[in-house]
Amino acid sequence: MNVTLHGRPSHFRTVTFDLRRNAVLLIEQRLLPHQFRIVAARDFRQTARAIQDMIVRGAGAIGATAAYGLAQGARAFRGRSPAAFHQHVEFVSATLLAARPTAVDPANAVAHVRQAMRAGRTLEERQALALAAAEEFANDDVRHCEAIGRHGARLIRSGMNVLTHCNAGWLAFVDVGSATAPLYAAQAQGRKFHVFCDETRPRSQGATLTAWELAQQGIPHHIIADNAAGHLMQRGKIDLVLVGSDRTLGRTGEVANKIGTYTKAVLARRHGIPFYVAIPLSSIDWHLKSGFDIPIEQRHESEVLGAWGAVATPQAKARASRPALRRPQPPRRAYVRVANPTSDGLNPGFDVTPANLITGIITPVGVLKPRELWTRRRELGWPG
Amino acid sequence: MNVTLHGRPSHFRTVTFDLRRNAVLLIEQRLLPHQFRIVAARDFRQTARAIQDMIVRGAGAIGATAAYGLAQGARAFRGRSPAAFHQHVEFVSATLLAARPTAVDPANAVAHVRQAMRAGRTLEERQALALAAAEEFANDDVRHCEAIGRHGARLIRSGMNVLTHCNAGWLAFVDVGSATAPLYAAQAQGRKFHVFCDETRPRSQGATLTAWELAQQGIPHHIIADNAAGHLMQRGKIDLVLVGSDRTLGRTGEVANKIGTYTKAVLARRHGIPFYVAIPLSSIDWHLKSGFDIPIEQRHESEVLGAWGAVATPQAKARASRPALRRPQPPRRAYVRVANPTSDGLNPGFDVTPANLITGIITPVGVLKPRELWTRRRELGWPG
Repeated sequence: MNVTLHGRPSHFRTVTFDLRRNAVLLIEQRLLPHQFRIVAARDFRQTARAIQDMIVRGAGAIGATAAYGLAQGARAFRGRSPAAFHQHVEFVSATLLAARPTAVDPANAVAHVRQAMRAGRTLEERQALALAAAEEFANDDVRHCEAIGRHGARLIRSGMNVLTHCNAGWLAFVDVGSATAPLYAAQAQGRKFHVFCDETRPRSQGATLTAWELAQQGIPHHIIADNAAGHLMQRGKIDLVLVGSDRTLGRTGEVANKIGTYTKAVLARRHGIPFYVAIPLSSIDWHLKSGFDIPIEQRHESEVLGAWGAVATPQAKARASRPALRRPQPPRRAYVRVANPTSDGLNPGFDVTPANLITGIITPVGVLKPRELWTRRRELGWPG
Repeated sequence: MNVTLHGRPSHFRTVTFDLRRNAVLLIEQRLLPHQFRIVAARDFRQTARAIQDMIVRGAGAIGATAAYGLAQGARAFRGRSPAAFHQHVEFVSATLLAARPTAVDPANAVAHVRQAMRAGRTLEERQALALAAAEEFANDDVRHCEAIGRHGARLIRSGMNVLTHCNAGWLAFVDVGSATAPLYAAQAQGRKFHVFCDETRPRSQGATLTAWELAQQGIPHHIIADNAAGHLMQRGKIDLVLVGSDRTLGRTGEVANKIGTYTKAVLARRHGIPFYVAIPLSSIDWHLKSGFDIPIEQRHESEVLGAWGAVATPQAKARASRPALRRPQPPRRAYVRVANPTSDGLNPGFDVTPANLITGIITPVGVLKPRELWTRRRELGWPG
């Protein structure tokens, strides 16, 4: 999507491939929203490290990064022996998958690229097929997000106030995003609306990433404390809630997403406000039978006991609105301990929203009722 | 309540009077939770500035501070003329009230002290009566909080998990607090329970002040993100919600309190969890007829766009658990900008919880249903 550099919006993807340098190009997401920089991972080890170190994060984005990383590794092979090539590809795959072992998208991506390589008769053909398959994987990710946007845009009317939680934006995918896709599509169709971004404590992805995306895209928005959404709903200031999903149960329609999502769903129900979840098909879990079986990651207490940010100067806001990259002035990032120093924190990372609080699930094949995931499972990639 | 200094818990009030120095002694609340320090306001102008600069905050605490400040000012008068004394008292009163013009407690406090002074025949008698009335005002504040504790403690059983929001603790009163009073009373009766403190973004009074109070008092607790309460309720981890109130409508039982309170009430109702509000009688508004008429303060966006905290060092937690005041090492406080630098924030400070979500209101005269505020108005200080 758009990033304004030197005063002009330019189009970027979260991850792309530089053929000449055999490098994977990534937006350095740890510097956002305070600094925008593209970094090049020059071999598959650097690409794996970029996944591991969270330079790139988000299901779709790390899937495509792993796909490109495997093509990059295959293309760097300089020997002649097919057996050695096969061994090398095994090693590259294992290195990439070890970078984020619990994520499902890199595993799908690597399997996709390896499947495609089988059709090659020579090493050169296999190397070329690997890159073509990686490009295909990345383009499919974009196409699925665009389809989510097409279906979801119908829900957004001019004058609406939309509430978002966390970041399921284009930074989490190759482009467009899941929960943001309907917003970008509606904007492209000329509709004027306003977004409230939950800051999304404790990691603040709403205040940092979603707000940055919307600002770059020119969509009017305000950041609010997570505590404020209920009050705004009570005063009639929110017309629609739109969130992403980390895992959606295909059998029940339950949605696991960033902590606080469930609270917004409960509030939306009380106020009769539609609550939609946008999901890529890869996030559907066809195995689990109950949301209570979804493991809830307990994250480190330091996230809830403090905050990361840029050390403020009076000029920071003025500077930020000037072209950013002409003279890079990276702000100093620091962690501050907010909480009482002798207290402990408890930090569940996700929660589960039951299907009966969800108005609809926006998928690449259309907007479905939660129960329709199962009845239409054959269209949705059910493994059988 | 207790503060552990040099390894031993000592008892403190938020505000006290030093007769010998004619000084108002205050806990410097802006340094908490990272540093504990008592400061002396040596004349009524310093006392007014302490209120204005938020060295002392919280309804009961600023009321008592204003009462002591008026006594302090009256006692500093060195002339002989009754007319000049009267003028001086007028000026001291106006100075103290201008420090926090919208608060109701300082106005009540000043009126109480001035009323008491009328009985004095000489200047010396009036000065003595002023101080006695200020002490009486402070002691009444403590007695009312203790009564809230007595009535509320019956709600807390051993093994319970209690959720709190914001800080309506002893730091906001002269001692004991409102929402914390039942906790301290139950602890004194030997009951063992655990508290989840909502961090209470954007100003984090739960993570800073409430957590500090509970730690000093030795009550087991965990700080959670405001987003986590819904999930914990869903998993059966919360048995009772206990909050304070900035303004309670005597006619309807609606409660205005820190932003996010309404959300917790909605969640508690969904999960069948009792939701109690503890209030001092001074917070009852007998005039307004609807919660929608309560003005909601819009606070500065910088609160929601960033965070204040102590710049972290690896030794911070270890140091904090050692006796703090032997060798004061004030941690460096800093503001970090968390949010995207080009985005704006919206920051409503309070919200309104309707009476039908409130299980009971814990007052100094007993635990009442919200509608009983009106039917029992004569016991509750209704002005008629």
